[in-house]
Amino acid sequence: MNRTQLVDQIQQKKNYLCVGLDTDITRLPKHLQSHSNGVFEFNKAIIDATKDLCVSYKINTAFYEAIGIKGWEALEQTVHYIPGTHLKIADAKRGDIGNTSAQYAKTFFEIYGFDAVTVAPYMGEDSIRPFLDYEDKWTIVLGLTSNKGSKDFQQLITKAEGTGESFFYNAVMNKVALWGTPDNLMFVVGATKAEQLQSIRHTFPDYFFLLPGVGFQGGSLEEVSKAALTKDGGILVNASRAIIYAGKGENFAEEAAVVALGYAQEMKQLLLNPSA
Amino acid sequence: MNRTQLVDQIQQKKNYLCVGLDTDITRLPKHLQSHSNGVFEFNKAIIDATKDLCVSYKINTAFYEAIGIKGWEALEQTVHYIPGTHLKIADAKRGDIGNTSAQYAKTFFEIYGFDAVTVAPYMGEDSIRPFLDYEDKWTIVLGLTSNKGSKDFQQLITKAEGTGESFFYNAVMNKVALWGTPDNLMFVVGATKAEQLQSIRHTFPDYFFLLPGVGFQGGSLEEVSKAALTKDGGILVNASRAIIYAGKGENFAEEAAVVALGYAQEMKQLLLNPSA
Repeated sequence: MNRTQLVDQIQQKKNYLCVGLDTDITRLPKHLQSHSNGVFEFNKAIIDATKDLCVSYKINTAFYEAIGIKGWEALEQTVHYIPGTHLKIADAKRGDIGNTSAQYAKTFFEIYGFDAVTVAPYMGEDSIRPFLDYEDKWTIVLGLTSNKGSKDFQQLITKAEGTGESFFYNAVMNKVALWGTPDNLMFVVGATKAEQLQSIRHTFPDYFFLLPGVGFQGGSLEEVSKAALTKDGGILVNASRAIIYAGKGENFAEEAAVVALGYAQEMKQLLLNPSA
Repeated sequence: MNRTQLVDQIQQKKNYLCVGLDTDITRLPKHLQSHSNGVFEFNKAIIDATKDLCVSYKINTAFYEAIGIKGWEALEQTVHYIPGTHLKIADAKRGDIGNTSAQYAKTFFEIYGFDAVTVAPYMGEDSIRPFLDYEDKWTIVLGLTSNKGSKDFQQLITKAEGTGESFFYNAVMNKVALWGTPDNLMFVVGATKAEQLQSIRHTFPDYFFLLPGVGFQGGSLEEVSKAALTKDGGILVNASRAIIYAGKGENFAEEAAVVALGYAQEMKQLLLNPSA
């Protein structure tokens, strides 16, 4: 999916919601716990109930890997089930030396058919390039993350050529932005940090940001939207647990849709009246 | 496997070689290319031929993921085939927010039964803790990596509380060392950088280092050993492509063993005469 297609979806639906499928097999509703393919059945119901209320799905690979090969089967079925209109993100946080990153890029873009994959930048250019080399695919590099640990390293003061002193995450984003373009590169920017988000948007007016952390992690949709929305949308706001675990019973998908609808309605307002 | 067991293996064998199973399905010898389970058959032969010449195997997960579910099956078979005497490393470079890292830790330590997993530090403490929480398991955190891209971010000058100005990788290693101990934490230190390795060993006298980069990536076994060997051994030197692709034909495993034997003999000398 290229940028024009993504922006079209956002404009048509007036929506920039990404639903995070962090499907934990130990948290399935009772009636799915004994199902031979409970994780996929759960995802299928969530997708059916929310696809009109979002433009993207993000599959957190860890939850699938943690149940072994069965998990990869559920992941594969899930990504194939997501409609072609929706940006399919593998939240995999991969990154290794060049020849290894090339294998990861192949895994997510070719084998499973994702549109985008999250990448950790620690190992530098050759760890990121193999992902960027794919046409009409997206590399989503970690900038400032939403977790407590983001202060440990991302927010250390760092000297980088050309930009002087800045937070380490700024140095990372400045350099990574030289390797990609707003057509193939996005950044993860933690939605729990609206004040920093505004300054990051100022520095990177043209890049899409994937904003996890709304909902369970405590980020405010209104605040982060006001800080980072652009005329193209320019953000994908992810909510995972707040949506998929909204209900615990047989009607979990309907309850997920209610929460997703709440986000969708708020997003519509924010897109129509960005400064309200 | 705990530290005493690992050190015993190194002392008994007079060997600190880790064989990297970066098994690329497109590089299998001809006679295995049409085999229904070629990757495992390849690994099995390599393990049979090299197990007396090394103390550890490192499985680079990317090469298995890149062939889909069949790859995970081969990975699972391989890790079960590695003898219990050998440290089994998942070279997976994982790391995410706490609840997600917990899933990755479960994946590699519980589901597949690895002894160790490599972890990327970008997301900070809560991304690393879940791995460290496992008893008799090892978390191997990226310090200074062996690739060209290590200069992009790892070698930026950074200010950190307590330690003043240092390379970013130093700031990372200093802080991560506070979270683990030499009994559950190792660092990846690129074996292509012998001069930096010496200074890192000086700062961290008690930690095991995993040194990739010998062989194909150009690191010198003698130089890195002299820079970082301790009385406990204290290093695991990994070679992947230089060993497993030493031969291209039906006798690939014998040719791999010849290269591994070369490393093993050199290691024995270096352990017996560390200052020679």
